[in-house]
Amino acid sequence: MSASALVTALELAGLYVFATSGALLAIQKGFDVVGILMLAMLTALGGGILRDLIIGDTPPAAFTEVIYLIIPLVAAVVTFFAHPLVQRLAFTVLVFDAAGLGLFCVTGTLKALDFDLGPVQAVLLGITTAVGGGVMRDITARETPSLVRTDSELYAIPAAIGATLVACAHYTGLSTIVVATGAAILVFALRITAMLRHWRAPYARVRS
Amino acid sequence: MSASALVTALELAGLYVFATSGALLAIQKGFDVVGILMLAMLTALGGGILRDLIIGDTPPAAFTEVIYLIIPLVAAVVTFFAHPLVQRLAFTVLVFDAAGLGLFCVTGTLKALDFDLGPVQAVLLGITTAVGGGVMRDITARETPSLVRTDSELYAIPAAIGATLVACAHYTGLSTIVVATGAAILVFALRITAMLRHWRAPYARVRS
Amino acid sequence: MSASALVTALELAGLYVFATSGALLAIQKGFDVVGILMLAMLTALGGGILRDLIIGDTPPAAFTEVIYLIIPLVAAVVTFFAHPLVQRLAFTVLVFDAAGLGLFCVTGTLKALDFDLGPVQAVLLGITTAVGGGVMRDITARETPSLVRTDSELYAIPAAIGATLVACAHYTGLSTIVVATGAAILVFALRITAMLRHWRAPYARVRS
Repeated sequence: MSASALVTALELAGLYVFATSGALLAIQKGFDVVGILMLAMLTALGGGILRDLIIGDTPPAAFTEVIYLIIPLVAAVVTFFAHPLVQRLAFTVLVFDAAGLGLFCVTGTLKALDFDLGPVQAVLLGITTAVGGGVMRDITARETPSLVRTDSELYAIPAAIGATLVACAHYTGLSTIVVATGAAILVFALRITAMLRHWRAPYARVRS
Repeated sequence: MSASALVTALELAGLYVFATSGALLAIQKGFDVVGILMLAMLTALGGGILRDLIIGDTPPAAFTEVIYLIIPLVAAVVTFFAHPLVQRLAFTVLVFDAAGLGLFCVTGTLKALDFDLGPVQAVLLGITTAVGGGVMRDITARETPSLVRTDSELYAIPAAIGATLVACAHYTGLSTIVVATGAAILVFALRITAMLRHWRAPYARVRS
Repeated sequence: MSASALVTALELAGLYVFATSGALLAIQKGFDVVGILMLAMLTALGGGILRDLIIGDTPPAAFTEVIYLIIPLVAAVVTFFAHPLVQRLAFTVLVFDAAGLGLFCVTGTLKALDFDLGPVQAVLLGITTAVGGGVMRDITARETPSLVRTDSELYAIPAAIGATLVACAHYTGLSTIVVATGAAILVFALRITAMLRHWRAPYARVRS
């Protein structure tokens, strides 16, 4: 299996689990099958679509290859019929979600750099690619975005670290492929560790 | 009246009732006149703007002809002053809304096909054109999108059927104009029947 | 200090206070540091990004100069550490926010006119530039947009007046720079007066 085939396979697996998390939330909120499909697609594709609109790459990647639409559709249908089983696999879903997080923050940053955006902008778009769909999922489902809740484990911060490493490599001439691979693995490891150790982001104490 | 003049007239009528539904929800939620105008425009134009941003047709159609902005403005003003009357016409509004649903899912799909998007992508954008504004309306008003509620009658599914027919006609060489007209009428009829017979979309039972 | 340097300084001050209002709301809602950063950036940059996506100027201005991203980041960090002090300066924040409102509705309208949009479209985009970020802030924080609440003082209406004056000047051959400056000051004065006198927008009375 070539490196590029591996990236594609991981990317599709990432889309699948992102879509699954959207479908599960829709089921939990009592949405009908339309809501399950909508939340699955929004979660999987929302971040990347927003990134592509901002860098001006239209139609967004999600609309150029039909597989990007098929994967979330399949995830939604599978979750619809097998959601009790999917829920028992909750930890497995979170592990793949962490892989998706690592992968998408890296590929999002690389794409923004390819389109000649500056390093800070590319980091922001890398994070957006990885976490944007989840925020759209939560807003549509009328939940406080899990990304910003003080009782949720680190999610955006590992993505920010990974995106920053990739942007630094781009400007220092280090091998992009080596750093990108390392950054994706680091983000994955940080996210998994954050879940296991309940690492949380700081928040501002409001004096009452 | 030529066919194209008829389509334009129906399109403007569709925008008018979409905007009315936004204005009515804003009034019901106790929003001020700014909220009424905002929700009217968002409901009428949101789906088409999103479609045009995705296919890369900027500025979106809603910003090319001033009539597309004037119609929702007029609908908002009329609803502001005459909302008790408009509410008594609720069923009439729903009938025109069904016409808008049929029309916009067809024109949205055709536009996406014109921009060389694939059939699945075109169907998704056709549905987005027809239902996107309503979802934005409900999110802004902090309501669960009526599109996904299990107690609301079929809305997106008729649009999906219509959009699929149009995409199939495009690839099989059938007369686009005949199929498009038939599809729009079918969507309208399905939506009206769904309302009268309380047809609802399936949902996933959560075992408690 | 040249006129253009003054506009840039005011623009950055406007971004800073818009971002501060986002960070303060995030703290009030109990969001973590990720939420504080996200809401700060969304509030400051959301309206301008939406305008640029619609007129087709990608990447949006917010992504072309890194200072546009740095300012909201700094505002978020300062608010994170010094929010009790920032809250005591609430009125000062509102005064700068009014300055931002005046400035961004004028610059947003001018940019849309530059991109050859019609006058009504340019006015709508000018208002969007000024108020769009605040609406995105409130939706993400699951609040009824303060823009549409009947207990909030005039905000969009001064922006609409300012944007309309700028569009009229563009078409009547009046000096754009004089009218634009006057319009920004007028919007600022109207907003401050509305706050002091509790001017509110009309709303539709729902008979119960």
